[in-house]
Amino acid sequence: MEDLKDVYLTPLPESQYVKPFRLHYTQNGKQKNWDLLEVHDSVAVIVFNVTRKVMIFVKQFRPAIYYNNVHPKDRQSDQIDTNKYPASLGIALEMCAGIIDKNKSVEEIAQEEVLEECGYNVPLKKLQRITSYRSGVGVQGALQTFFYCEVTDEMKTEQGGGVDDEIIEVVEKTIPEIEALVTSPGPISSPPSCLFALMWFLHYKADQFRK
Amino acid sequence: MEDLKDVYLTPLPESQYVKPFRLHYTQNGKQKNWDLLEVHDSVAVIVFNVTRKVMIFVKQFRPAIYYNNVHPKDRQSDQIDTNKYPASLGIALEMCAGIIDKNKSVEEIAQEEVLEECGYNVPLKKLQRITSYRSGVGVQGALQTFFYCEVTDEMKTEQGGGVDDEIIEVVEKTIPEIEALVTSPGPISSPPSCLFALMWFLHYKADQFRK
Repeated sequence: MEDLKDVYLTPLPESQYVKPFRLHYTQNGKQKNWDLLEVHDSVAVIVFNVTRKVMIFVKQFRPAIYYNNVHPKDRQSDQIDTNKYPASLGIALEMCAGIIDKNKSVEEIAQEEVLEECGYNVPLKKLQRITSYRSGVGVQGALQTFFYCEVTDEMKTEQGGGVDDEIIEVVEKTIPEIEALVTSPGPISSPPSCLFALMWFLHYKADQFRK
Repeated sequence: MEDLKDVYLTPLPESQYVKPFRLHYTQNGKQKNWDLLEVHDSVAVIVFNVTRKVMIFVKQFRPAIYYNNVHPKDRQSDQIDTNKYPASLGIALEMCAGIIDKNKSVEEIAQEEVLEECGYNVPLKKLQRITSYRSGVGVQGALQTFFYCEVTDEMKTEQGGGVDDEIIEVVEKTIPEIEALVTSPGPISSPPSCLFALMWFLHYKADQFRK
């Protein structure tokens, strides 16, 4: 995962993933505008293995996090120096998640992501829908639906690690390790949706697994 | 806040806020690219009023959330129909927050946002730095530093509501109201950073204020 080279920037061409535009509007009689992106809705799933009492995370290289760890003065050069900025700076720890880009239910998408990324084959009825929220308020406001799912070692039928070009490592953490993570001074290389998931689990679920 | 009209889209011109580009890289010998945005680092602050045991939220119209509530078939027209899609669809409930776009410490930026948005004048030493995390993993990976701050009615020296063109409403919620919010089936018109903040407060702080 950490073998990284030939890192450079180009202007954004027509993109399937990032569609920026400007929204114009008049609020309380005042003309305004706001720059934003069209992004897909998504799902995120807390996967907790009750056999061994560990939470299942996915770890992967995230270009947007890597780039933000590069000092602005080093972003301008033709190529980013990967000796100075190794791939480890861009590795994120996340919940299992995926975008909704198929004509399937959110439950089916969640089920598919748990299998592809984490290797657990879970029946749909094991996916507990918790809530949904806006994945951002600034430039992207897509909906993310959030699930909780208890799995057992017997459900681990595949390797996990993603499909196609994805390079995803499956990581397990115990409840004390989760507590250490959320109380660390940071920077935590995780998004707030992951931290919400961890706090939700610690507050509403963890006690029953502590003995 | 909810008087909205003349809503339409244009392509993104050169923008101060949204700078999209493509990052090229070679990972494990395979050439890849990823589309992302340059965005500012930011701060977010949990503001809890200990005089009346209420959490202080900010409520504002968020174009990115509004847009995502518009059905794709209605996004293509010259103008979005605000009778069919009222402004209320874009109103978000959030923690006090702001981007780091000045040469000040994160604590000073946090202090300034609490005053401008919520109207509380807090000494720097009341701002408890909790942690920092990545605000996203997909297209934006900027760092958000997260504070907790207890305030009293005496510290409320200003109206709040933002500066310049900002239209921000200050909203208070009791602990039971916070619990009702995070356990609601959604969609919750808030970002995951707000939900993380609420769960963090409920888990680590709320009990001492329940009596």
